[in-house]
Amino acid sequence: MAETAIIVGTGPGISASVARACAREGMQVVIAARNAAKLAPLAGEIGATAEECDTSQPAAVARLFQAVDQRHGAPDFVLFNASYGYRGPFLERDPAEVRKALEIGAFGGFLVAQEAIRRMQPRRSGSLFFTGATASVKGFPNSAAFAMQKFALRGLAQSLAREYSPQGVHVAHFVIDGGVATGRDGSGDPPDRWLDPDAIAATYLATHRQHRSAWTWEIELRPWVEKF
Amino acid sequence: MAETAIIVGTGPGISASVARACAREGMQVVIAARNAAKLAPLAGEIGATAEECDTSQPAAVARLFQAVDQRHGAPDFVLFNASYGYRGPFLERDPAEVRKALEIGAFGGFLVAQEAIRRMQPRRSGSLFFTGATASVKGFPNSAAFAMQKFALRGLAQSLAREYSPQGVHVAHFVIDGGVATGRDGSGDPPDRWLDPDAIAATYLATHRQHRSAWTWEIELRPWVEKF
Amino acid sequence: MAETAIIVGTGPGISASVARACAREGMQVVIAARNAAKLAPLAGEIGATAEECDTSQPAAVARLFQAVDQRHGAPDFVLFNASYGYRGPFLERDPAEVRKALEIGAFGGFLVAQEAIRRMQPRRSGSLFFTGATASVKGFPNSAAFAMQKFALRGLAQSLAREYSPQGVHVAHFVIDGGVATGRDGSGDPPDRWLDPDAIAATYLATHRQHRSAWTWEIELRPWVEKF
Amino acid sequence: MAETAIIVGTGPGISASVARACAREGMQVVIAARNAAKLAPLAGEIGATAEECDTSQPAAVARLFQAVDQRHGAPDFVLFNASYGYRGPFLERDPAEVRKALEIGAFGGFLVAQEAIRRMQPRRSGSLFFTGATASVKGFPNSAAFAMQKFALRGLAQSLAREYSPQGVHVAHFVIDGGVATGRDGSGDPPDRWLDPDAIAATYLATHRQHRSAWTWEIELRPWVEKF
Repeated sequence: MAETAIIVGTGPGISASVARACAREGMQVVIAARNAAKLAPLAGEIGATAEECDTSQPAAVARLFQAVDQRHGAPDFVLFNASYGYRGPFLERDPAEVRKALEIGAFGGFLVAQEAIRRMQPRRSGSLFFTGATASVKGFPNSAAFAMQKFALRGLAQSLAREYSPQGVHVAHFVIDGGVATGRDGSGDPPDRWLDPDAIAATYLATHRQHRSAWTWEIELRPWVEKF
Repeated sequence: MAETAIIVGTGPGISASVARACAREGMQVVIAARNAAKLAPLAGEIGATAEECDTSQPAAVARLFQAVDQRHGAPDFVLFNASYGYRGPFLERDPAEVRKALEIGAFGGFLVAQEAIRRMQPRRSGSLFFTGATASVKGFPNSAAFAMQKFALRGLAQSLAREYSPQGVHVAHFVIDGGVATGRDGSGDPPDRWLDPDAIAATYLATHRQHRSAWTWEIELRPWVEKF
Repeated sequence: MAETAIIVGTGPGISASVARACAREGMQVVIAARNAAKLAPLAGEIGATAEECDTSQPAAVARLFQAVDQRHGAPDFVLFNASYGYRGPFLERDPAEVRKALEIGAFGGFLVAQEAIRRMQPRRSGSLFFTGATASVKGFPNSAAFAMQKFALRGLAQSLAREYSPQGVHVAHFVIDGGVATGRDGSGDPPDRWLDPDAIAATYLATHRQHRSAWTWEIELRPWVEKF
Repeated sequence: MAETAIIVGTGPGISASVARACAREGMQVVIAARNAAKLAPLAGEIGATAEECDTSQPAAVARLFQAVDQRHGAPDFVLFNASYGYRGPFLERDPAEVRKALEIGAFGGFLVAQEAIRRMQPRRSGSLFFTGATASVKGFPNSAAFAMQKFALRGLAQSLAREYSPQGVHVAHFVIDGGVATGRDGSGDPPDRWLDPDAIAATYLATHRQHRSAWTWEIELRPWVEKF
C-alpha cells in the first residue's frame, strides 16, 4: 500500500521539493499551508491534496490530520516546515509579532507533532521530521525572535526523539545552514552556492529510508562554499 | 550611588538567594513574581520592593520597569528567572498549557529583556542574566514543553549577547544542571548533593562583577556528584 | 571511469560493510589495516586490494597512497576508520598506551587526510570521511584516552571541512552513537538493538552522493532504542 | 595551612596573572615551563618556585610533581596552560610538528592530570583546571593541528570531570575566546578589546572558590566586542 506524506508549511522551496520527491516515490501526498490557494499549482502538478492550515491553531491542525485520516489513513511521513521570519533590531521588535513567531514556528510544531505521533506511535512506525536553520543552533544579532522559535523547535524535536524513537517513530531535525536557491537569481555567484531544494529533499528521503538500527536524529546541510 | 537589581520570577530558591546577595552588596533590590503576596517576607527581610508581574503580559512587564524607573532609576542587574514547569507524556499534554509555558518562560524572557536593554543600552552598562536548566541544552523525554521554553530562552540570550555585548550590556545564560536544595529534606543524600542557591548566587554575582574584557556568555553549574 | 575508494582501519564491522557497498557501486576498492593478513578474505570476496598500513607512521601512510596512485589513480572516496580503544580507570592508564592511542587515532587521521586532500584538492572533488563515536562529543569516565583521540579527530575533520569544502572536497564526520552488531550474539536483545554496519554504510554512501549545494559535515547514527 | 598552586606552561599572559593571583591569596606558587630561565623574574617578583618541565615527557612531569611534594606537599590548584601553536595551510604542515603539538598540548595535559589527580583524589579535594581556546570547540581553517590538540584537551577535561568530580576533584575547562592583551599595542583598538589576563585570572580563582554543590565544568570568556 502506498505511504502517506503530510508536508506542513509548504512554500516554493524545500516543501515543494520534498512533496515532489514523495510523489515520485509513489506516496500519497498532502500539502498544507496557511494559504491553500497558493498550493493549487503544485497539487495539480504532482497529484497531491492541498489543505489550508494555520499551524498556530489547535483546531486547524486537528482538522488537517482528520481530513488525511479519512482520505488516506495514518501518515507515514510528516514534515514540519513552517516558520515565521521576523528579524530586525531587538529593541524595535513588536511583542505581538514575536508571540506570533513562537506560535507558528514553535507551538505549531508541537501541535503537528502531537497529531503525527498520536497516529504513528500505535503503529510503531513513521517519520516525523523538522526543518531547522542555522538559527536553530546559533542565535544571531537582530534575530532573537527567529532564534527563539527555531531553538524551541529543536528542543521539541530532541525531546521527541528521546521519547518516541524507542517506540518506533523516527524523529529527525535538519539544520539547513545556508540560503535556498529557490527564487534567487544566482548569476554571478559560484556554482551551487545556494542549497538546491531537490538536493535537500534527497537527504530527507534517504533519512526516511534509514534502517532503524542506524537512525539519525540531527543532520546539517550546507552549500560547499558556505562559511560556518 | 547604589546599583539597582530586578529579579523576575522570584521563588524561594535561586531568586531569593540572588536577592539576598544583591542586598548584601548594597544594591536596591526589586523582586517580582506572579503572586506578590508570597514575596512579602523576603522583601521585609532584605528591604526589597516586591512587585506583581505576570511575565507573559507586555503591559505587566512594562509597568514593572516603569515602577522601578520612578523609584530607583535604570536597573544595573536584571535576572530573568521565571519558568513554567509542565512535564509528562507528550501525547497527554494539553496544548493550552504548552502555549502558556512558552508565554511565561520564553515570551516573558523576551519582554523582560526588551525593557532591560531599553534602559541599559543607552548607558552602555548593565547585566542581563537568564537562568537556564539542563533542559536548555538537552531535550528529555516527557519534557517537550519545558525543553521548548528553555531552548527558546537560550536562543534569545545568545542572540542578545551577540547584539548587545558590543554595546556594553553583559548578557549571560546560566545552565543550572541539577536540583536546587531549597525545600528538600536531603537527609540520606551525600553532602552537598543539591545545588545550594547561595552558591549559585555567588557565581551570578561574580559574573556580574567580571571585567568587560573577559565576559562569560554561558556558564554551567552542577553539584559535584551530579551525573552529566 | 570507476571511482576509487580507500578504507583505512579495516575491521569486520563498519569498514567491511563500507568496502562491500563501494564494490557493489562499481568502485575500485582498497582496504588497509595494521595487519593485512586479516584482510585477505574480504579482499577476495569483493575483489579489493589489501594493503598493510600502520596509520601512526608517516612513511606507511605515504606508501599506501602511492601504491593506490600507481594501481588506480587518485582516490574519490577515503574513509578513516582507525582507532585505538584504551579504556579503564584514569589513574591506572599507561602513558605509553595513551600516546599510542593519540598516534593511531588522531595523528593517523591527520596523515591520511593530508595524503587524501593532496590528491583531491587539485581535482576539486572527492569525499574524505571520518568515523567518530559517542566519545567524539562526550568524554566519559574511564575513557580519557579514547575521548582524547576521538575529540581530536573531530577537531581535525571540522577544520578540514572549513578549509577544503570550498575547494570541492567533501569532508564529513559520522558520530556512531551505539554498539555495532558485528560479532555480537544479540539474542535476547530487542530487534535492531545494535547498529547494522550495512545500514551505516548506506548512510556513508548516500552522503558521498550528496549534491555539493547541500553537503553534510556531521551526521549522527544510533539505534532506535539507544539512550542518548 | 597555605594552599599550593602549580601552574604549568607559564608564559607572560594568563599563567603569570594566575600565578600572581594565587600568590596574592597566600598560596605557595610553583611555576613550570619548558624554559625555566624565562620564569626567573616572575618567580622573584611573587616569591614562587620556578621549575623546568617539558610537558610531553612523562619523566619530566613526574619530576615536577615530586619536587613540589617535597617542598610544599600535595597541590590544591593545578592549571594546565601549555599549548603548541602550529598554524598554516594544512597541506604544508610538517607531520613531525603536528605530532609535537599533540604531545605538548594533549598528551602533556594527560600527564599533568594524572600526577595532579593522583595527589588530589585521595584527599578528596583540589582544583584541576585546563585553559582552552576558541579552537577547543571550533576547528578553523589553517588550524587543524591546533584544533586537534585543543579538542583533545577538552575531551580529556570532560572525561576527568565525569570521573573525578564525584570524588571531590574540581575539574574545569576555560574557553578563552579571543586574544589576550599581553604584549599587544592595542592603541587604536576599542577599550578592553583584548582579554586582560588579570580578569581571566579573577574568574579562575572564583571558580576555584566555588562551593562543591555548584561547580562549573566549562566556562567561556571573551571580550565584550568579540564576534562569536
